[in-house]
Amino acid sequence: MKIRLLLTLLAASLAAAAQQPADYVNPIIGTNGMGHTFPGACTPFGLVQLSPDTDTIPHNVGGRYQGKAYEYCAGYRYSDPTIVGFSHTHLSGTGHSDLGDILLMPATGPLKLTPGRASSPDEGYRSRYSHDTEKATPGYYEVTLADYGIRVQLTATQRAGIHRYTFPQGEEGHLILDLTHGIYNYDGKVLWANLRVENDTLLTGYRITNGWARTNYTYFAISFSQPIREYGYRDLEPVKYNGFWRRFHLEKNFPEIAGRKVVSYLRFDTSRQPELVVRVALSAVSTEGALKNLRAEASGKSFDQLAGEARESWNNELHHFTVEGTPDQMAMFYTSLYHTMINPSVYMDVDGQYRGLDHNIHRARGFTNYTIFSLWDTYRALHPFLNLMKPERNADMVQSMLEHARQSVHGMLPVWSLMGNENWCMSGYHGVAAVADALVKEVWTGESADALHALTTTSTVPYYEGVADYMKLGYIPLEKSGTAASSTLEYAYDDFTIYRAALKAGNTEMAETYRRRALNYRHLYDPSIGFARPRLADGSFKPEFDVLQTYGEGFIEGNSWNFSFHVPHDVFGLMAVMGGERSFLDKLDRLFSMHLPEKYYEHNEDITADCLVGGYVHGNEPSHHVPYLYAWTSQPWKTQYWVREILNKMYRNHINGLGGNDDCGQMSAWYLFSVMGFYPVCPGTDQYVLGAPYLPYMKLELPNGKTLEIKAPGVSDHKRYVQSLRIDGREYDKTYITHSDLLQGGVWEFRMSASPNKRRGTAPDTKPYSLTGNP
Amino acid sequence: MKIRLLLTLLAASLAAAAQQPADYVNPIIGTNGMGHTFPGACTPFGLVQLSPDTDTIPHNVGGRYQGKAYEYCAGYRYSDPTIVGFSHTHLSGTGHSDLGDILLMPATGPLKLTPGRASSPDEGYRSRYSHDTEKATPGYYEVTLADYGIRVQLTATQRAGIHRYTFPQGEEGHLILDLTHGIYNYDGKVLWANLRVENDTLLTGYRITNGWARTNYTYFAISFSQPIREYGYRDLEPVKYNGFWRRFHLEKNFPEIAGRKVVSYLRFDTSRQPELVVRVALSAVSTEGALKNLRAEASGKSFDQLAGEARESWNNELHHFTVEGTPDQMAMFYTSLYHTMINPSVYMDVDGQYRGLDHNIHRARGFTNYTIFSLWDTYRALHPFLNLMKPERNADMVQSMLEHARQSVHGMLPVWSLMGNENWCMSGYHGVAAVADALVKEVWTGESADALHALTTTSTVPYYEGVADYMKLGYIPLEKSGTAASSTLEYAYDDFTIYRAALKAGNTEMAETYRRRALNYRHLYDPSIGFARPRLADGSFKPEFDVLQTYGEGFIEGNSWNFSFHVPHDVFGLMAVMGGERSFLDKLDRLFSMHLPEKYYEHNEDITADCLVGGYVHGNEPSHHVPYLYAWTSQPWKTQYWVREILNKMYRNHINGLGGNDDCGQMSAWYLFSVMGFYPVCPGTDQYVLGAPYLPYMKLELPNGKTLEIKAPGVSDHKRYVQSLRIDGREYDKTYITHSDLLQGGVWEFRMSASPNKRRGTAPDTKPYSLTGNP
Repeated sequence: MKIRLLLTLLAASLAAAAQQPADYVNPIIGTNGMGHTFPGACTPFGLVQLSPDTDTIPHNVGGRYQGKAYEYCAGYRYSDPTIVGFSHTHLSGTGHSDLGDILLMPATGPLKLTPGRASSPDEGYRSRYSHDTEKATPGYYEVTLADYGIRVQLTATQRAGIHRYTFPQGEEGHLILDLTHGIYNYDGKVLWANLRVENDTLLTGYRITNGWARTNYTYFAISFSQPIREYGYRDLEPVKYNGFWRRFHLEKNFPEIAGRKVVSYLRFDTSRQPELVVRVALSAVSTEGALKNLRAEASGKSFDQLAGEARESWNNELHHFTVEGTPDQMAMFYTSLYHTMINPSVYMDVDGQYRGLDHNIHRARGFTNYTIFSLWDTYRALHPFLNLMKPERNADMVQSMLEHARQSVHGMLPVWSLMGNENWCMSGYHGVAAVADALVKEVWTGESADALHALTTTSTVPYYEGVADYMKLGYIPLEKSGTAASSTLEYAYDDFTIYRAALKAGNTEMAETYRRRALNYRHLYDPSIGFARPRLADGSFKPEFDVLQTYGEGFIEGNSWNFSFHVPHDVFGLMAVMGGERSFLDKLDRLFSMHLPEKYYEHNEDITADCLVGGYVHGNEPSHHVPYLYAWTSQPWKTQYWVREILNKMYRNHINGLGGNDDCGQMSAWYLFSVMGFYPVCPGTDQYVLGAPYLPYMKLELPNGKTLEIKAPGVSDHKRYVQSLRIDGREYDKTYITHSDLLQGGVWEFRMSASPNKRRGTAPDTKPYSLTGNP
Repeated sequence: MKIRLLLTLLAASLAAAAQQPADYVNPIIGTNGMGHTFPGACTPFGLVQLSPDTDTIPHNVGGRYQGKAYEYCAGYRYSDPTIVGFSHTHLSGTGHSDLGDILLMPATGPLKLTPGRASSPDEGYRSRYSHDTEKATPGYYEVTLADYGIRVQLTATQRAGIHRYTFPQGEEGHLILDLTHGIYNYDGKVLWANLRVENDTLLTGYRITNGWARTNYTYFAISFSQPIREYGYRDLEPVKYNGFWRRFHLEKNFPEIAGRKVVSYLRFDTSRQPELVVRVALSAVSTEGALKNLRAEASGKSFDQLAGEARESWNNELHHFTVEGTPDQMAMFYTSLYHTMINPSVYMDVDGQYRGLDHNIHRARGFTNYTIFSLWDTYRALHPFLNLMKPERNADMVQSMLEHARQSVHGMLPVWSLMGNENWCMSGYHGVAAVADALVKEVWTGESADALHALTTTSTVPYYEGVADYMKLGYIPLEKSGTAASSTLEYAYDDFTIYRAALKAGNTEMAETYRRRALNYRHLYDPSIGFARPRLADGSFKPEFDVLQTYGEGFIEGNSWNFSFHVPHDVFGLMAVMGGERSFLDKLDRLFSMHLPEKYYEHNEDITADCLVGGYVHGNEPSHHVPYLYAWTSQPWKTQYWVREILNKMYRNHINGLGGNDDCGQMSAWYLFSVMGFYPVCPGTDQYVLGAPYLPYMKLELPNGKTLEIKAPGVSDHKRYVQSLRIDGREYDKTYITHSDLLQGGVWEFRMSASPNKRRGTAPDTKPYSLTGNP
């Protein structure tokens, strides 16, 4: 890939001076294939992700679903030949698409007010481009639009995107502001758009969309470095504006317009001044809020200053890790780290005002409000990673979730929070796991009664996906839900985390209630097959059951073979219901080594053969902890084998380098933990299960100021096994490490070998936590 | 009319005890025909007008305009056989329709979630009703829904509507909350609706509409006196709510929904408790604002208490007048007074927050914010009336207009303000006249520089309907505007008021600029015909011109014959350009006595033969001052003749009793002034031109605490002429009175006679103000 080469060359040339962590990041990783990442400019956890969109495949046309929407979750496909424009909000790595708000596109020549098609780009304002002209580094993106000869440079602040366009010498240029553009677009996504030309260098406006986020308010303020010479609109769907007659020439230099389909153009005198800097600040509150954000973050500084600050903000977040590895490994490591810090995103104005789930305006007092919680994914490793490395941020995220619950008419913590909306995407109520984990690890230190209240209300909403039956029967009957089996497993785990939080807060009665609920997983295991299997309301198991089939069998994004291992809180108990250790090990081994017939995934848009390790699907999160389950068995060394297999296959410094959707950083957080050599199999406990380091050397600057060095000299695919581990010189033979152990820092010395130490970690006292203890 | 009889009987029975002014008001006046008034419950200048809607004729069907929308400006037609439901916002007397927000309808029997058609009401939730069951008094409305046997009682506070429904004994009842309902409805008017069931007695929600008001935000909070037993929705256009699958039974007991077409039902246990009280508070700010309004105004009091308070609030506003007259005259007088106090309407929450023209949330500091400014109509008599009788309110209205200008991207005062929108309806920039009049009369006493700034910016927006040309040429060329002639006349008058405001504020330079602009009317008068006639850009008059034709001749809502008199600020100057006094008088006389051929109004929805006095069209405001123009001539007595003719013909205690749209109280304010015997021909001066009293006795309690008695013993159609006037015992022979004279109060004694006193008011020193003096 040319981009990567360029960056590598750039990195090499800079290394002579002083290599910074941002130099290793390659935002192009995952921008093709399954990754669904975007290459554009953003700052850590910023509201704005300013990035090129390479197509505008509508979600549906004439009511018919267009499958391609899935490919455009991040708006950009590396393989696409044209760029439509540069929009300001993007999801990082999701499996569902949305956003792409407030698109700008610079152009020259005849005015074109529709994007046109990629197959005939000249019919619209889109442009061809070459990857040779593309540069992507943290906080900076650059490309040249071939059709216009315009050099585009992008950078960002937390709440603003800054564009620098250099037009060809002597040519008159214009900008398109297309308020109909969007990712997950369909006719009707834009409920309303409003635009005002406040003066000859300032626009304000907003749009309200009904995309994946049901009701998304995006206000903006846009300033220009040179005066607008002339402007106008294409109002695709003329809007009644006057009961009697239209008195204004709305199409030209009339400073306000509103409608469902507003596209505007703005002409600038670029033949005299070829450089145009555009600053676009967003707010979910008001245009006044967007103006405040613009003034506070993006005014009074040059593009270069702002780009430098964006880069600096990334270095400040990335420098806590020092690693050694090959250039590809370095790129993969720092890019993964980068990808863990895009979503969740700050969702409030500089003055603390934000739009709540109730659509009212709230003020965040004493915390920063965040949105984009893809919790079915991120409770697993992303939030634990942030608890470890960015605890202040995660405490604020937890506070944001608690405020969400307070604003919810259901009293529920978020399931999938997007721009102040509950998207109800995926299953479980994993907000409780994220909150409980932060409480148990003492990362969130607010009033525990508030947290327990939210945990209780969230887990007892009777109309939420089978919860009433789950509370009555201990499982969800298949007649009541298409995800009866997987949701039962997920609730049981989530309930376990509530048990742990209640214990931590000293509420033993509540703890006991949820301890019992945590055992509900047991209802599902069919002794005749040793796998989880949905039950009907009468208590019988579903007849005709295929443990390899993902669809129609009561599970979601995972077949029974994968999902049956989803009892991270009671692995010994799970072993018992799966037929004992031998049977458990056998199923684990076969999971990683089987041949999964193509018929099980050929119609599945998010599974390809590339995402498989045997029948293990890394791109679908329910399996993420599974390779670590060997720790509870007599063969813990197998974790070391399979984790390295997955790291090698699923994470590559390549446009197609991610073996699944990055899912707002969950895939990347899995990578980071696994590279470090440990993984939070069961958030809600304080334990991490040990695997093996992936790299020979790594140093972590912990948030408490201590340092942790992880040494694994000579580690390689060949020498992947842990012979022994010494922590600060003392032999350490457990298969897990605790959160407080980690926070002590120190030096971990792994001795790696080509063959496993099969005795290590087999003694009962070396085993990780399990609710019901060693069977 | 039965209603009127009922009310008269009621009034008669109450008279024995203590007759209150509210007893005289008959809200049914004008609810058929041209009046466009509504019969429902409201408080003076309140945000809420809770009233029955008798049809939902959509504005257009399949893109085709439905002419009937005009008839339903207030949602109610007395002649209609069915009631669709009760909605909370209504315009009073406008010629353009909108609002009808948040419709509730109680029902029994099978659930119907569409309104159905008036021609077959059983197919929907609408109901037949009889006028026999209808009662309408200030702040109270009652009707029985015949199809359901439900007695409906309505009352209101400033920001809330209160419903009391009495269901038939032993029957289960339900409520329909139809968020698709609206006046000026069309497929797409509702941009978005949101509804939450907060608990079993509280709903919150909002909707955003693109009606006549381009973007109207209506938030609500609704409380019930008994718990909701069950609820659900009809989601006409299913909304994507989950990317993967719908997990909830949204149609039943799921406490939130959003979409473009949301209709919900709520079941109550009315067989146990037949009475249901519903309290609906509105806000333009947020559901939080609506809740605040609900708690502050509509909670903790019974329906009867609130209805009593609503009535009391009307008595407090109405009691400043004591009049003597026949029952019909009393009804007409107090109903007119009532109609001057519905619009403009308070537009802010109890905490002072309101939505501005910029769609941002503002806080009104030191004033009450108002909306619904139908200024083309109301600058003439309504605002002058309020300046005289409700100066504090009008000062706040002027402040609201100044804030509007501050929030306007054009810097303009309102043209037609509706719920924080600029509707750009009708011509001129008469906001300046309303502001200037309040400044000249010292009613608004803010920083005069702020007001002058708004007057200047409003009158110099180059792209506003021909203003650039008007400023350059002194008139708008017909090529540039369909209202070239009338707009030129209107600007010249508006500019005069700016001249007066600048003089008052001591800005002589600005005064001189606008004094010159005030003479621009002169460009239009064609000496060959002695009427105003549009000019082309080359200076020539429009060829082929019909002075009786309203359409296509450069005028709006008035032909040249009527509009040529629109120089209220320089009547002597006007006389000169119309060919001298004899020609002027001749044209005036012929205006009132001519036969206007039907072809001139047969296609006009707001003119019928009933609205005509000769060629004078009272229903269209440009003529309102014209009968008073005799004061400047040698025959001032003719005003006394024609004004009484108009009063008799255009104002009757009858459903069809208004001879034109009441236009937010302008028609009613004309009535009140004319009945008192004087009229503000030229707001911006401090003068009122005298006509003759219509009633034998009237007492005004002026806002400064003084009292004005107007006595005209024996006045009648036969004795309509003023023989003489004595003020506080001194003979008064002028044809006008000043604002400061009026504020002195005192006793006016008119001696009336059957034949005119042709000498009275003919001397030069008795004449009203004219910019260029007696020619």
